[in-house]
Amino acid sequence: MASCVVACLQQCFSPSSLRSYLAEFISTFLFVFATAGSAISARMLTPGSTTPDASSLVATAVAQAFALSVAVFVAADASGGHANPAVTFDFAVCGHIAVQTAVLYCAAQLLGATFACLVVHTLSAGQGRRGHDGFGASIMEAVATFMVVYTVHAACDPRFVRAGGRRCAAAAAETAAGSVAIGLVTGACALATGPLTGASMNPARSFGPAVVSGDFRNQAVYWAGPMVGAALAALVHQHVMYPAPARPGSVETVVV
Amino acid sequence: MASCVVACLQQCFSPSSLRSYLAEFISTFLFVFATAGSAISARMLTPGSTTPDASSLVATAVAQAFALSVAVFVAADASGGHANPAVTFDFAVCGHIAVQTAVLYCAAQLLGATFACLVVHTLSAGQGRRGHDGFGASIMEAVATFMVVYTVHAACDPRFVRAGGRRCAAAAAETAAGSVAIGLVTGACALATGPLTGASMNPARSFGPAVVSGDFRNQAVYWAGPMVGAALAALVHQHVMYPAPARPGSVETVVV
Amino acid sequence: MASCVVACLQQCFSPSSLRSYLAEFISTFLFVFATAGSAISARMLTPGSTTPDASSLVATAVAQAFALSVAVFVAADASGGHANPAVTFDFAVCGHIAVQTAVLYCAAQLLGATFACLVVHTLSAGQGRRGHDGFGASIMEAVATFMVVYTVHAACDPRFVRAGGRRCAAAAAETAAGSVAIGLVTGACALATGPLTGASMNPARSFGPAVVSGDFRNQAVYWAGPMVGAALAALVHQHVMYPAPARPGSVETVVV
Amino acid sequence: MASCVVACLQQCFSPSSLRSYLAEFISTFLFVFATAGSAISARMLTPGSTTPDASSLVATAVAQAFALSVAVFVAADASGGHANPAVTFDFAVCGHIAVQTAVLYCAAQLLGATFACLVVHTLSAGQGRRGHDGFGASIMEAVATFMVVYTVHAACDPRFVRAGGRRCAAAAAETAAGSVAIGLVTGACALATGPLTGASMNPARSFGPAVVSGDFRNQAVYWAGPMVGAALAALVHQHVMYPAPARPGSVETVVV
Repeated sequence: MASCVVACLQQCFSPSSLRSYLAEFISTFLFVFATAGSAISARMLTPGSTTPDASSLVATAVAQAFALSVAVFVAADASGGHANPAVTFDFAVCGHIAVQTAVLYCAAQLLGATFACLVVHTLSAGQGRRGHDGFGASIMEAVATFMVVYTVHAACDPRFVRAGGRRCAAAAAETAAGSVAIGLVTGACALATGPLTGASMNPARSFGPAVVSGDFRNQAVYWAGPMVGAALAALVHQHVMYPAPARPGSVETVVV
Repeated sequence: MASCVVACLQQCFSPSSLRSYLAEFISTFLFVFATAGSAISARMLTPGSTTPDASSLVATAVAQAFALSVAVFVAADASGGHANPAVTFDFAVCGHIAVQTAVLYCAAQLLGATFACLVVHTLSAGQGRRGHDGFGASIMEAVATFMVVYTVHAACDPRFVRAGGRRCAAAAAETAAGSVAIGLVTGACALATGPLTGASMNPARSFGPAVVSGDFRNQAVYWAGPMVGAALAALVHQHVMYPAPARPGSVETVVV
Repeated sequence: MASCVVACLQQCFSPSSLRSYLAEFISTFLFVFATAGSAISARMLTPGSTTPDASSLVATAVAQAFALSVAVFVAADASGGHANPAVTFDFAVCGHIAVQTAVLYCAAQLLGATFACLVVHTLSAGQGRRGHDGFGASIMEAVATFMVVYTVHAACDPRFVRAGGRRCAAAAAETAAGSVAIGLVTGACALATGPLTGASMNPARSFGPAVVSGDFRNQAVYWAGPMVGAALAALVHQHVMYPAPARPGSVETVVV
Repeated sequence: MASCVVACLQQCFSPSSLRSYLAEFISTFLFVFATAGSAISARMLTPGSTTPDASSLVATAVAQAFALSVAVFVAADASGGHANPAVTFDFAVCGHIAVQTAVLYCAAQLLGATFACLVVHTLSAGQGRRGHDGFGASIMEAVATFMVVYTVHAACDPRFVRAGGRRCAAAAAETAAGSVAIGLVTGACALATGPLTGASMNPARSFGPAVVSGDFRNQAVYWAGPMVGAALAALVHQHVMYPAPARPGSVETVVV
């Protein structure tokens, strides 16, 4: 009996299980960040009215569609990509996952959703386009860029070996899917953070207009934020989610 | 002569045929639910005007595009995914399906469409955002979540075996397609039910804002509705549409 | 010299060449029908203003994106799916197609575009939502349904053999692509014809609301139009574009 | 030591490295062209107001999503498709690319973004719909058509061998991905240049309305611009990015 509890706990807190909870946390964070962010952004753009208009409905629905596609995609091989307690409940009902796993999945999802709402509400509080302070905007850009770069990692690991003109036909369909995922997460984050920070997530996209207009004032925000977010994404994806030796077919072994 | 009729009836009402009618019923329900729901939702958001504006056109067109993609996807291997009497008529003209099958497909489609309109009209009658009663909103959430979780089942059955960090490159393209389908059905249901219930379909997505705002009043709606919808989707997909032993390559056999 | 001209003419007017011109005609028709139709529809929904608003820009851009994806998809294996004289010119410059083929492709494209504009302008002239006559609306529905059902044929031929519960994993990616194509063409046609006829393209989608509201007045339009369009699509795709014996892996041989 | 520097320089400026910088330049140009262009276009369509509305948010977010998907897709096998200094920084942090390569990637990205902003701002300055001069509009059309035709080349090279009715089932998934990419880039360019030039990128799409209306005035713009853009795309893709002999499985060898 006691050994059974120990075994169950060991399984629930094994490295791969912990990674699956982290995957659920990140996916639910991404989905709720885009959903709550786009709702706030759309409301911010229709200041006089008390009800949203049809454009706001489109904005939030498209943000949800794009964000959930990506949330499922990036977590698919770590946790199954539920990002929703109802889905986890359903899988437990079907017997596909154990009850204790389902409970811990749900806990990760609720934590991720709460954390996403905290980030969105804190950073959007009392801020409008152009009226934000640089520090809050940098954090917002870092969060959005984290999402984008994390998706880049999930989408295109097999692509590195083809860099430099070599072609691998078998991976083409996967590349196409990855391209779409990267586009969708960018669209979702643009809907979530557009009216708050301008939704750059890309220093080049802010550098170009600065050169043309000669106005380099907010450049620090659009370099520091994305760089920090990208470095964090590299850290989380490459070292926490997929530590190199545990991964068959990784870049190191293939390139050699 | 009589034996021919009996054989024909046996074929028309064999288990796999009955499943294909159910698949057509569900797909047409999904499509019409999203189409009619998004039209009502868009009209609800432009209260003063008698004609829709261009945003409403975008909302309903995007809802149709997303919903039909998913409707065809989830029914593709059970019935071919027609969801449209004109498509069924066309396949009968081409000789791809028998006339009696076409008639029963059309009956299932018309039933599904009528049922979807009934649900949408009943639940949206006399209700606006924030003004709905909890019971109607719970049913709406249950219906929308049913769609989402049913799509999850259709999209990602092969994914379970990869849960826990293992990777199966061959299934990656299918996973990507499934991710997109799950995102699209969520977007379609968000367009259909957004102004009516807030379109959660996900307890975590409602729990986060409640924690941040401290307002837990409607939580019951966003937990009960999705859980009931998810359990129903599990029941219908796993036990009615695809009973376990009839399915080659099912989870049980592969995992062992 | 004379024999060279004869050989060249024979190649230019061989059955497979004629089919490729027809494919370009249909694809360009589809693209321009959606583009011109959505522009007219969006303008119709912003009656007071002289300039389009941002919603109209979204409506026409999404219609173009959806329609061109489908236009390329349905013609890909017959003509390469150019649907654009600039693309054909480019392929001729690269030497991928002969100059005489390029000229005939362009002629087919210009004919398709002109015919599409004629249809859109004739059927939309002097008509607004609810104010159209039944005959014009039936033709509009027939044209839109032709597009949808033609895409269904292009997308899902291999799917017939799986109807009835059998599963073919290898075709799953193709099925997913076909599902998306069917959704996209429906969205494009909804953007093109929504304010003109209601954009049904599906008798079930019109039957459901009629049952709920008890108003069956325009039902004839939404049954006759789509049925005629679907039958025409079957005729063109199955007998003109892909006559059965010339097609390896066709339904007949596989099913037996 | 000196030889090490020489070897490093040789690697940094080898033909395949130079091609990867060009790929990053083109991809970032495409992304920033669509992003900056759609922001200007959306602002142009809401003339009276100082803030964008929710439709503008949707327009720019969709333009970003579509354009980035395509930008990653077209450069995937030449450079990995970063189009973002943050992504390049991230890959350098992970050790997937060398620091000197990362620096040159970033330089190419910043150049591409700046050039895109220059083009957009110069061509949109003081112009509104219908008020543009023919030369500026031709250049705008040429730039947008360059993007579309370049994507056609990237998407469908393997398709040429199937032209004329032959079918290659293995390439179907790739064809579907290419179809979507061509649709997405057209949608992104329509969002970027719609209010400036009408966003034709396709002579047939301008020829049809001209025939119907009898107004052939601006036809030169919509033939010259796209033809020049298409020829440039052919030149860059076929001769600079992928010179024929260096490419295994090219059209010439397969067709023979």
